[in-house]
Amino acid sequence: MRLPLGKLPSSILRKIILDSIKVDNSVLLPPKIGEDGAVVRLKDNLIVAASDPITGTSSKIGWLSVHINANDIVVHAAIPQWFLVILLMPEGTKEKDIEDIMAGIHRGLEELRINLIGGHTEITNKVVAPIVAGFMLGEPIKPGYFIQTGGAKPDDAIIITKGAGIEGTLILATDFYDELKKHIEKELLQNAQQLDRLISVYKDVMTLISGIGLENIHSMHDATEGGLLGALYELSEASNTGFVIYEEKVPILKETKAITEFYKLDPLKLISSGTLVATIEKNLAEIAVKKLQEIGINAEIIGRITEAPDKIVVRKNGYREILSEVPIDELWKFLGHKEV
Amino acid sequence: MRLPLGKLPSSILRKIILDSIKVDNSVLLPPKIGEDGAVVRLKDNLIVAASDPITGTSSKIGWLSVHINANDIVVHAAIPQWFLVILLMPEGTKEKDIEDIMAGIHRGLEELRINLIGGHTEITNKVVAPIVAGFMLGEPIKPGYFIQTGGAKPDDAIIITKGAGIEGTLILATDFYDELKKHIEKELLQNAQQLDRLISVYKDVMTLISGIGLENIHSMHDATEGGLLGALYELSEASNTGFVIYEEKVPILKETKAITEFYKLDPLKLISSGTLVATIEKNLAEIAVKKLQEIGINAEIIGRITEAPDKIVVRKNGYREILSEVPIDELWKFLGHKEV
Repeated sequence: MRLPLGKLPSSILRKIILDSIKVDNSVLLPPKIGEDGAVVRLKDNLIVAASDPITGTSSKIGWLSVHINANDIVVHAAIPQWFLVILLMPEGTKEKDIEDIMAGIHRGLEELRINLIGGHTEITNKVVAPIVAGFMLGEPIKPGYFIQTGGAKPDDAIIITKGAGIEGTLILATDFYDELKKHIEKELLQNAQQLDRLISVYKDVMTLISGIGLENIHSMHDATEGGLLGALYELSEASNTGFVIYEEKVPILKETKAITEFYKLDPLKLISSGTLVATIEKNLAEIAVKKLQEIGINAEIIGRITEAPDKIVVRKNGYREILSEVPIDELWKFLGHKEV
Repeated sequence: MRLPLGKLPSSILRKIILDSIKVDNSVLLPPKIGEDGAVVRLKDNLIVAASDPITGTSSKIGWLSVHINANDIVVHAAIPQWFLVILLMPEGTKEKDIEDIMAGIHRGLEELRINLIGGHTEITNKVVAPIVAGFMLGEPIKPGYFIQTGGAKPDDAIIITKGAGIEGTLILATDFYDELKKHIEKELLQNAQQLDRLISVYKDVMTLISGIGLENIHSMHDATEGGLLGALYELSEASNTGFVIYEEKVPILKETKAITEFYKLDPLKLISSGTLVATIEKNLAEIAVKKLQEIGINAEIIGRITEAPDKIVVRKNGYREILSEVPIDELWKFLGHKEV
């Protein structure tokens, strides 16, 4: 059934959204028809809040929205607990389209035990593809304490998990499969399409915290737009530091290598949700890497934080690239060219 | 300058967004480049959260986004305090376009003393007009206590403020001015274009609470999509009650009357943010109306909550219309026709 413009009719809202919502007893006023806001009870009196939309891809966007927003909470050493979501759907949307997105949202929420507490669903001719705008609330792991991206200190070791450009690899392998399959082996592309399993940094963060202790982690960041270098640029700017990293030390999945070489993209500047960037006490860096690898999360020490403000990438050929800005994501550049 | 696809370059983000943000000392981690989440300190351990997008109009959307989300918090007898906002802008957006929206957001936030604590701004080809997705957090006025829309009780008096269809009147007078001015006097249309001054229910709620006391207000709701009847339908459904209201008692601004008669729209089903619908102890209804009118907010008793579940509008001609669903907003129907 093609849905009309505007908010969902209440019978459909109930059927395809509200009836599927279950919340725990922290939620005093859950989502209901007519309730404009939700009320939750906290353990502590600090709350961590973050918001991010998903617009760059159309598959699995509900599920991704949960994890990408949860990532923004865990990097502050907090547990994501309550989620609100605005779904904006194009004209011609059917119930099934919304059900699919909601199923993804529920799957993500169940994986991390998060409550859906509110939102808004609307069919609008102002969008040409589904947009999921998510808002996440969380509480500090240690009451009253949080880590900020801007907490990096000179001499910190920089470690990253998994690899650079993983989210971009997933998006390209999904959206340009037909073109890529003529040049890259099918199995590699199919693996790339399953990289969503790496998008969450929840386990990375929890492992790091339990492995070396909260106080030895000075800064954490999830590498979203602008990729690894964007994340490092932002992190060091926020911390009033610089950094030096070595391209040769940056782990790159073979799926990423194949696709970025084909399209001539720099994997270090390719959107990479799921890549945790952390700066930590340098003497604990080896232990941190070992703890992560023990539970199956690849991790590497790729460089260090510097007091000098220069943001330096030592390329494989020895060239020292100095960043003066968060790079424009390789994915946006690529999509821009594709559509011209 | 035409901005590239993706997140804003950090120099522009700083210049047109971050540099203009001021927060109070409840915000421990304010918005900064690289910080994925914000951290705030509460007085109490309850928090009220709500989210709403603005897509239906393109002028003043930043300012509206603040007030519409604040409305969703105050109706729960809470003070809106922290705001996050996702701006999704179409290809071809210029810095100035974002600055204008941000100026509106700041104006709204200052009016209600709310802190901007986070968000996301992106240029994307998935939208054809600016979209502002807002997310508001607030704290109960009385610690630990909140009012819910679903709290209406049989025999409650239903009062509304200002008039039905005010937001729709504003949108139509703005977006269809050229057509309307051929048929409706200019002054009336210009007044209609200024109805945004009525969009906030903040003062309505605060006046009602101070006038008759928190405990005598059983339910409050802001009449958004579906208009007054949509709000009443939702409120009574959430409360497991019915209602009877009388069309002849519903205040309608003369601007609304002129425009809805011209386009043959039902003002009772026209989007109406700014119209507070409250159900209160019936013996206090006259006092409540008087208190509101004393500070210049028109208010009327338009009917009552019933134990019987029927949702009844007694039309001026005596016809008893029974609602079986939140009505599709007259504005969406109208825009649908306009664009076919």
